[in-house]
Amino acid sequence: MRLRLINGPNLNLLGIREPDVYGSSSLSSIESKLIDFAKKNGANLDCFQTNSEGDLVEEIHNSINQVDGIIINAGAYTHTSVALRDALLGAGIPFVEVHMSNVYSREKFRHNSFIAEIAVGVICGFGFDSYKLAIKGMLNHLREVSREDE
Amino acid sequence: MRLRLINGPNLNLLGIREPDVYGSSSLSSIESKLIDFAKKNGANLDCFQTNSEGDLVEEIHNSINQVDGIIINAGAYTHTSVALRDALLGAGIPFVEVHMSNVYSREKFRHNSFIAEIAVGVICGFGFDSYKLAIKGMLNHLREVSREDE
Amino acid sequence: MRLRLINGPNLNLLGIREPDVYGSSSLSSIESKLIDFAKKNGANLDCFQTNSEGDLVEEIHNSINQVDGIIINAGAYTHTSVALRDALLGAGIPFVEVHMSNVYSREKFRHNSFIAEIAVGVICGFGFDSYKLAIKGMLNHLREVSREDE
Amino acid sequence: MRLRLINGPNLNLLGIREPDVYGSSSLSSIESKLIDFAKKNGANLDCFQTNSEGDLVEEIHNSINQVDGIIINAGAYTHTSVALRDALLGAGIPFVEVHMSNVYSREKFRHNSFIAEIAVGVICGFGFDSYKLAIKGMLNHLREVSREDE
Amino acid sequence: MRLRLINGPNLNLLGIREPDVYGSSSLSSIESKLIDFAKKNGANLDCFQTNSEGDLVEEIHNSINQVDGIIINAGAYTHTSVALRDALLGAGIPFVEVHMSNVYSREKFRHNSFIAEIAVGVICGFGFDSYKLAIKGMLNHLREVSREDE
Amino acid sequence: MRLRLINGPNLNLLGIREPDVYGSSSLSSIESKLIDFAKKNGANLDCFQTNSEGDLVEEIHNSINQVDGIIINAGAYTHTSVALRDALLGAGIPFVEVHMSNVYSREKFRHNSFIAEIAVGVICGFGFDSYKLAIKGMLNHLREVSREDE
Amino acid sequence: MRLRLINGPNLNLLGIREPDVYGSSSLSSIESKLIDFAKKNGANLDCFQTNSEGDLVEEIHNSINQVDGIIINAGAYTHTSVALRDALLGAGIPFVEVHMSNVYSREKFRHNSFIAEIAVGVICGFGFDSYKLAIKGMLNHLREVSREDE
Amino acid sequence: MRLRLINGPNLNLLGIREPDVYGSSSLSSIESKLIDFAKKNGANLDCFQTNSEGDLVEEIHNSINQVDGIIINAGAYTHTSVALRDALLGAGIPFVEVHMSNVYSREKFRHNSFIAEIAVGVICGFGFDSYKLAIKGMLNHLREVSREDE
Amino acid sequence: MRLRLINGPNLNLLGIREPDVYGSSSLSSIESKLIDFAKKNGANLDCFQTNSEGDLVEEIHNSINQVDGIIINAGAYTHTSVALRDALLGAGIPFVEVHMSNVYSREKFRHNSFIAEIAVGVICGFGFDSYKLAIKGMLNHLREVSREDE
Amino acid sequence: MRLRLINGPNLNLLGIREPDVYGSSSLSSIESKLIDFAKKNGANLDCFQTNSEGDLVEEIHNSINQVDGIIINAGAYTHTSVALRDALLGAGIPFVEVHMSNVYSREKFRHNSFIAEIAVGVICGFGFDSYKLAIKGMLNHLREVSREDE
Amino acid sequence: MRLRLINGPNLNLLGIREPDVYGSSSLSSIESKLIDFAKKNGANLDCFQTNSEGDLVEEIHNSINQVDGIIINAGAYTHTSVALRDALLGAGIPFVEVHMSNVYSREKFRHNSFIAEIAVGVICGFGFDSYKLAIKGMLNHLREVSREDE
Amino acid sequence: MRLRLINGPNLNLLGIREPDVYGSSSLSSIESKLIDFAKKNGANLDCFQTNSEGDLVEEIHNSINQVDGIIINAGAYTHTSVALRDALLGAGIPFVEVHMSNVYSREKFRHNSFIAEIAVGVICGFGFDSYKLAIKGMLNHLREVSREDE
Repeated sequence: MRLRLINGPNLNLLGIREPDVYGSSSLSSIESKLIDFAKKNGANLDCFQTNSEGDLVEEIHNSINQVDGIIINAGAYTHTSVALRDALLGAGIPFVEVHMSNVYSREKFRHNSFIAEIAVGVICGFGFDSYKLAIKGMLNHLREVSREDE
Repeated sequence: MRLRLINGPNLNLLGIREPDVYGSSSLSSIESKLIDFAKKNGANLDCFQTNSEGDLVEEIHNSINQVDGIIINAGAYTHTSVALRDALLGAGIPFVEVHMSNVYSREKFRHNSFIAEIAVGVICGFGFDSYKLAIKGMLNHLREVSREDE
Repeated sequence: MRLRLINGPNLNLLGIREPDVYGSSSLSSIESKLIDFAKKNGANLDCFQTNSEGDLVEEIHNSINQVDGIIINAGAYTHTSVALRDALLGAGIPFVEVHMSNVYSREKFRHNSFIAEIAVGVICGFGFDSYKLAIKGMLNHLREVSREDE
Repeated sequence: MRLRLINGPNLNLLGIREPDVYGSSSLSSIESKLIDFAKKNGANLDCFQTNSEGDLVEEIHNSINQVDGIIINAGAYTHTSVALRDALLGAGIPFVEVHMSNVYSREKFRHNSFIAEIAVGVICGFGFDSYKLAIKGMLNHLREVSREDE
Repeated sequence: MRLRLINGPNLNLLGIREPDVYGSSSLSSIESKLIDFAKKNGANLDCFQTNSEGDLVEEIHNSINQVDGIIINAGAYTHTSVALRDALLGAGIPFVEVHMSNVYSREKFRHNSFIAEIAVGVICGFGFDSYKLAIKGMLNHLREVSREDE
Repeated sequence: MRLRLINGPNLNLLGIREPDVYGSSSLSSIESKLIDFAKKNGANLDCFQTNSEGDLVEEIHNSINQVDGIIINAGAYTHTSVALRDALLGAGIPFVEVHMSNVYSREKFRHNSFIAEIAVGVICGFGFDSYKLAIKGMLNHLREVSREDE
Repeated sequence: MRLRLINGPNLNLLGIREPDVYGSSSLSSIESKLIDFAKKNGANLDCFQTNSEGDLVEEIHNSINQVDGIIINAGAYTHTSVALRDALLGAGIPFVEVHMSNVYSREKFRHNSFIAEIAVGVICGFGFDSYKLAIKGMLNHLREVSREDE
Repeated sequence: MRLRLINGPNLNLLGIREPDVYGSSSLSSIESKLIDFAKKNGANLDCFQTNSEGDLVEEIHNSINQVDGIIINAGAYTHTSVALRDALLGAGIPFVEVHMSNVYSREKFRHNSFIAEIAVGVICGFGFDSYKLAIKGMLNHLREVSREDE
Repeated sequence: MRLRLINGPNLNLLGIREPDVYGSSSLSSIESKLIDFAKKNGANLDCFQTNSEGDLVEEIHNSINQVDGIIINAGAYTHTSVALRDALLGAGIPFVEVHMSNVYSREKFRHNSFIAEIAVGVICGFGFDSYKLAIKGMLNHLREVSREDE
Repeated sequence: MRLRLINGPNLNLLGIREPDVYGSSSLSSIESKLIDFAKKNGANLDCFQTNSEGDLVEEIHNSINQVDGIIINAGAYTHTSVALRDALLGAGIPFVEVHMSNVYSREKFRHNSFIAEIAVGVICGFGFDSYKLAIKGMLNHLREVSREDE
Repeated sequence: MRLRLINGPNLNLLGIREPDVYGSSSLSSIESKLIDFAKKNGANLDCFQTNSEGDLVEEIHNSINQVDGIIINAGAYTHTSVALRDALLGAGIPFVEVHMSNVYSREKFRHNSFIAEIAVGVICGFGFDSYKLAIKGMLNHLREVSREDE
Repeated sequence: MRLRLINGPNLNLLGIREPDVYGSSSLSSIESKLIDFAKKNGANLDCFQTNSEGDLVEEIHNSINQVDGIIINAGAYTHTSVALRDALLGAGIPFVEVHMSNVYSREKFRHNSFIAEIAVGVICGFGFDSYKLAIKGMLNHLREVSREDE
């Protein structure tokens, strides 16, 4: 099982930006912990972050035939990017939408997601744990599907 | 750690209603598995289901001082019940909102939740696994909070 | 052919509430007449009324494998209850939506129905006759379908 | 009792257009059956079809003093024609709005009717039977009113 | 000065339809009075009525090079017909929009007019007098314009 | 017959403001001409202008028992003043709403009028002539009503 | 004069839920004080609380011929229950809508009330005093009406 | 305790305007009765009425350091005046919003209040009694607050 | 390959109406050129124009079994006619929606099309060339489909 | 260069109202400082404040031919007054819209301005400095324009 | 004549992504064919594709003075990018908006285009042929314009 | 005091794009003048421009600990970029939103700003001067804040 963690705009600020909300761990330390966590759950995880909508689209293209599932926290692009939706639709790779904060207790414009409709599932509000739950959920999903395929 | 699983309207039909969507396990077998899962994760879980908005409200009242966290799949009342929101607000018990299906790929009126804003987090789309991820997420949340309190 | 007539909130007031609009017959006398009418049309009809959304949901659950069709006047819950829609969707029993008054000549919020989309058909405005037309329509529908199935 | 059946745009395609939805009977064979059905129920029915909004308006004008009730399936004009509403309002003849298909399970713009508010009642979803139920409902309505007038 | 009075759908019912609202004069007697009124004001008026949107469009086309101004009571088509707007726009003949009743004290959908924006002016609420005021207003408008052109 | 002409905010700028749109006559010269016009039509007209919403309200109060009809061009207050509506409603004096320009060919927020619904009628777009047509229309209206009262 | 105080969902939490907002008195102590207050004002007051929409509807049915007026704090059902509106409409008993908090300084969805339109009056924002003012207002209303009836 | 009663536009018409709705007492007689009523409840009440938004704003400014609470029936300005909201916000004097009629059973545009959000409470629908209940409610509120401050 | 060109309301004014926008060629000269153009591309084209919604509907009915594809510029009916949509849906003939002007740079109400959703494609903004491109596009579409069918 | 500073409703409370937001300087001391500031920048500034919409309109009328530019903080009337827009439109004097607070971080209804569209520019959020920046911006604007005119 | 074909996000997936919808040709083979097609029509075409909104903007800047016309399929950015609109507005080069699929038969958010209003024309729904029709349409447009300029 | 000027998409076209609106100075000459202007006001200004949303986000990240204030003209991204808002929120550097043109006199979609709510202030409409006023306003703001901090 190969997974890819894709983080979108401003998530490189983790540990710097609003530490009381997002914790004091940097993105790279979070990525390390999640790589370990995935390994313990029998999967390879690689990580990617970008602040660019176009790079986000291209990393999803690159994932075709490279990974079995995507864990994506698209940050602000979740709410504004149809290009992201099209990339995920085109790539056809199952993905889980993740947010560290509870987007429903924030501004109205964060309640809309262009990608939730086509996701396997959505997880938000658990801080760093949102990622771990997403990895768990994705792996179970992939195993179930592959079992069904046999 | 004491948790309560609260299922709302029509979830008693699990295993009967749309088996291709919701799987063929009955609610009681799901509840058994989740009680075991919680135990393995060091927590007591008890379970409640009702089709009545009023009973849902009252079970939440009853939970005051009885449990440390609530896992709630309020079904259709998620989208229509302000009384449910008030009960959760009044009880002041941390809770996770769960859905088995991905509500964002269903009818527009299922995209609104009266309780998401005040939840710890929201998980949807992973079928039976949604509950397990919610238990995991809730326990981590409670442990973190209790650690901070020391 | 077994049919069930389900009446929702405030319909127990028939004969008492706004007699100039709804006529002076009580609900039980209406139910008696409809049982006779169904019998003459070769069908068994039983009747149920409740003011509770939860009981409405459960009566629909109970109808699984008990009846071939449902005639439902869900009253105010028509306009506000997603739980009712889910119950009818889950039960998978063909049903006709009925209203005694013409809901389109009343307040705007009565123009929305959460169940019309998944009904066989909708009948409103004919007073007591609305029920009789619904029974007729349902029986023809069931006979046609069973003929097609042969 | 004299009734008039008025069918609006595209209903001349019955039997040709989407036979799996609307059945394979032509409009004229449906009209014949309904004339017979009306006769058995003690009423004279005549029939009119047009694809023109203006002709629809004029046929309603012509109906003044000619018929006691109108059964109208105005097709697409139901949703767009204020002129039709004005004609029915001006003629002052009681009418029943009919649709063969369940308009609530179709496009959003078919959920609005400019004439439902001023109809005796509305019936939809029963295919050919919608017309028969409408004739029944209209005749009962007219008889009740005439009884009240005595 | 040549004027044309164009009346739209249902206005042939004048004197028959809702006499307490629209008075008991027939359309033809109203037309006669207005022809006289125009003559006294130094203008020729001819009259046209139709219930058909298409004929309305064509009469406006026919008016090109035939008349100097149009007085139009487009009835219900005022609120629904873009074709009417296009015809008036294409013909380029100055026109006054008239209504006998006060459309602002009626249903919401009568508050929108597709032609008011391109009219010389709008007059409503004065019953039969609306037409006379419109003729007066149009003639003054035309004389002013022709004076300016000299 | 006693009439009062009430002009609202910015109409004191007539002759100064946008002369190509509103003409080059000052308000007082317009008022003089309208007083003459009214006299020729057998009525006394007095005139009032204010830029203050409160004074507009009070002038309408003052008109009770003083005049038989009001001609009002409330300018911008037409679109924003509920107090004006209440004053006219409270005074119970028949009134005509007037605008010199065609408000429907201007900004969207000028399409709403808080007073049109309770007016006898509305006239707009004829420049100075709008007032004359309004006086005509009001006098005919008052005479008809007084004839009916006899 | 017989009055009934009806409290809706979550009001049984009074004294427990958000004491800084709602005070520290329990519902039963509040009910006692209001019974005394009513007695001093020459009226009998009885009290009812429920978390169930259906029971709310039925208690209103039960009130027919039992009480002269209803004081109702329907809590969250104020904003979501058409069934409650229908029950009050059907019962035809004058009622006052009460809220302890100022609903207009809370979430947008609390600004809509399905029952305010048909209430005698609405009182909100005075905490416990809201109830006392409502009893006062209701008694004066009833006495005035009965005086008018003589 | 010093209170000020502020009445907004058109309330000077009380006793004249729509007597069946607002009663036949004039504003000055109502003010006299309320001054007496306040005195019996241990408070001084003075009264002010204006039809001008600007004067309303200034009277609220004048009230700073002069009164302990304001009872305001802002009439139509309730629904349209942000300046009024700012004045009350700036003055920082607790106030109660009052309406004699039930604004929720009137036009839609009367359902919005720019001042309710910042009021102590809102009372409507009790005619003259609305003022008395407001005085009562305000005095209790002020006494409670002053008790808390000790 | 047989094609039909259907032009809707006001397009008979081509060459007369707004020549700077639509060019100075008359409809018949345009039709002639397009018949030639079709012939060069190996297809027979016949032409039809009407100002009537009903005739538009009927011409589409007539096209069943007569033509392989329709090129339609429905003019104003594009934006208002559900009957037109139903006719095209019922006929089941592939069609291209054409506009000479760029409808997106015109009034907001021209941005909605009731037929675009079910068209093969849409072309607008190229003046006379829009028709030629539509014929090209339609022929290629039909040839591709017929090739696939082999 | 002659400038006029016009302050609208509630700005006379400066120094009194919410000092932590608006600072502790009174309006008159602010006006003095701005007169000095203008002088240093080679311009005469005079000042006007009113709480009345009508007086605001009239001061703008008075400014015709008296000043070269207007600096206006219309306070709440910015968001509600079409009369103000008309006055500024009619006067034709260039003006800058100013707010001391950042209106975009306040209530939604303060995001609409009826005058911004026709202003030279808009400045908000800089407290007292907003006025100084506006004077600067206006003077540069006027000088540029006059240079262009040479 | 020099033309540039600009393809936006995800169009590099052509031939890979949803082959049944978009065909099995890769973007580069499509570009080759279009270059040939342009050449046959007497024009030079060069091609550019990017997934980045910023690069899209810059390629349009680069096109200034390089090409006579742009054929653009901006993919998802069509619906979300104001920056793209500004770039096209700023460059002032005539362009045609193209889509391979019929965007009107897809999700609602694809019905809005930020660039259609300022395009020469729009073509959608013809698959690969959309591009060819766009080239044809653009060349005719450019030739017509250059002929007019002579 | 260190300031950074950040210009967004299409502003590199200054001097080229719509010179009559934006003047004929190039961006680099504007930047030079502003660097001088800042120096005269005792501050260092550096400048950055990009057409890429991602680069905009990253430049804001880079500004952390580098500058004391940001002057930002985000161009079209002002209206569409939540990522930009998040970057500014995360960086926590005070900033002023600037536009050269008056955005309120342009298209509706330019009236929304995702960053105005969290800005120190907003300035628009003064052309090149908008930047100078913003620098002035920002410096005063920073000096005031630093004075308060002492």
